[in-house]
Amino acid sequence: MLTCLINGTVETRLNSDHRLVAFGDGLFETCLADRRGVRFWNDHLNRLENGLARLGMIWTSEDRDALETEIETVLAHVEGVVVCKLILGRGVQGRGYDFDPDRQRTDRIVQVFPYQAQPWHLQGATLVLSEVQASVNPTLAGLKHMNRLDSVLARQSARSAGAHEALLSRADGRLVEGSMSNLYLKRDGQWLTPDLAEAGVDGIIRRRLLRQTEETIRVADLLRSDLDRAEALMISNSLIGLVPVVSLDGRPLTPPAWDELSRFRTAIGLSSD
Amino acid sequence: MLTCLINGTVETRLNSDHRLVAFGDGLFETCLADRRGVRFWNDHLNRLENGLARLGMIWTSEDRDALETEIETVLAHVEGVVVCKLILGRGVQGRGYDFDPDRQRTDRIVQVFPYQAQPWHLQGATLVLSEVQASVNPTLAGLKHMNRLDSVLARQSARSAGAHEALLSRADGRLVEGSMSNLYLKRDGQWLTPDLAEAGVDGIIRRRLLRQTEETIRVADLLRSDLDRAEALMISNSLIGLVPVVSLDGRPLTPPAWDELSRFRTAIGLSSD
Repeated sequence: MLTCLINGTVETRLNSDHRLVAFGDGLFETCLADRRGVRFWNDHLNRLENGLARLGMIWTSEDRDALETEIETVLAHVEGVVVCKLILGRGVQGRGYDFDPDRQRTDRIVQVFPYQAQPWHLQGATLVLSEVQASVNPTLAGLKHMNRLDSVLARQSARSAGAHEALLSRADGRLVEGSMSNLYLKRDGQWLTPDLAEAGVDGIIRRRLLRQTEETIRVADLLRSDLDRAEALMISNSLIGLVPVVSLDGRPLTPPAWDELSRFRTAIGLSSD
Repeated sequence: MLTCLINGTVETRLNSDHRLVAFGDGLFETCLADRRGVRFWNDHLNRLENGLARLGMIWTSEDRDALETEIETVLAHVEGVVVCKLILGRGVQGRGYDFDPDRQRTDRIVQVFPYQAQPWHLQGATLVLSEVQASVNPTLAGLKHMNRLDSVLARQSARSAGAHEALLSRADGRLVEGSMSNLYLKRDGQWLTPDLAEAGVDGIIRRRLLRQTEETIRVADLLRSDLDRAEALMISNSLIGLVPVVSLDGRPLTPPAWDELSRFRTAIGLSSD
């Protein structure tokens, strides 16, 4: 970690009885950033504020101003591209799940980490289908909350197989996402991405794609069995951008056509070189 | 918090990039304790060690000895009954879901909090059915892991209604548990408790009841609609013991017969007075 501010103070540590530790009672954003600011900041902020409302956390315009000032401060002297991770956690006195909604505060943690682009971000990702299942919960679905054990365990499936990413699905066979990315699957000439109403993270790049490419990518119920007849696959997140998939469970896959990928990247404001 | 040891050192704080904060990558136990030790320690330890194995965490006999020594140390001078909370978190360098399984360590946090028995622990609990759903994930079900946002949100349903506890269920109508307790429901003269193969926490008191009372309590698929025709309800956890339910969603319920409750409490080693 290069820098860390907690509520505006240079501080790396947190009380071990904080609700972020005890329950994962908070939200985060992992952003690509440089001295000029956070890339796609409006999208990140929009998702954060939507999440804060859904978790019933306190968030005022003063909180937002403070967060934006803190981000500006930590980014003022960075060299090149970095990862800026934002964590908003519910701060309350006392032990136990309960809290008084009128006596909570939202703690802000702003962390900066080095960023290293990997060759596979451009050349394409190898995927495996993990046996670890995605957590299903309509109350929490879509949120980038701090309860991420399913991704942690699925990530190990990628590691064991020497792959870049692992896909999570549900007991009923429905595909959800990758451990750190959203998934796109081309079937009968149409790009599709799993519905996230019950599980998964509503990613920034996925949102931009759905918003800015109209019917080119559609939300659908996708099954594990759809992987067998996929014409092409892609994955995305804020750090890797939009990445073609070159193999699944060791079976080579034809990546999407370069001009198609390039068109998507341009449409959502990612450079395609 | 009265006391806190982290890996044996008097220390209350944790790095904000620890995986406990970032992902809830760990397990916990909330135990009733006094100067003589932790009540039902073998059960707590057994559940912890099962969880450590399922999450692929490192745990040696030296780790266990250290944890037991630390518990003994913090309890040596406490007055009366306290809550001893144990947290085991995966410690690893670096950012991101991935970790090298051969280069992880398990960090031990031992916290002591005051304990206050509430009148309702003996007189009976008021319950509501929450609209917040339980997280469904067979890979994680049963574990007392640190991803507890569903309980946090459900707890607010209890608060809004002025009730002691809120029940969580699933989209398909199946009952799972309370936000901080396991559930027992009497139907046609038979005590039943929800199956936890896909969601919920495998509680210590529930385990003891299932083990020590033979067929008196059985595991079953229970639906929200079963609540309407329940003859009686009980809830349990390590801090409240086994507690009769006196109302559900504002509707009075006949609590289980005193001698029945007393028989259960005695069977699992809880005093019934």
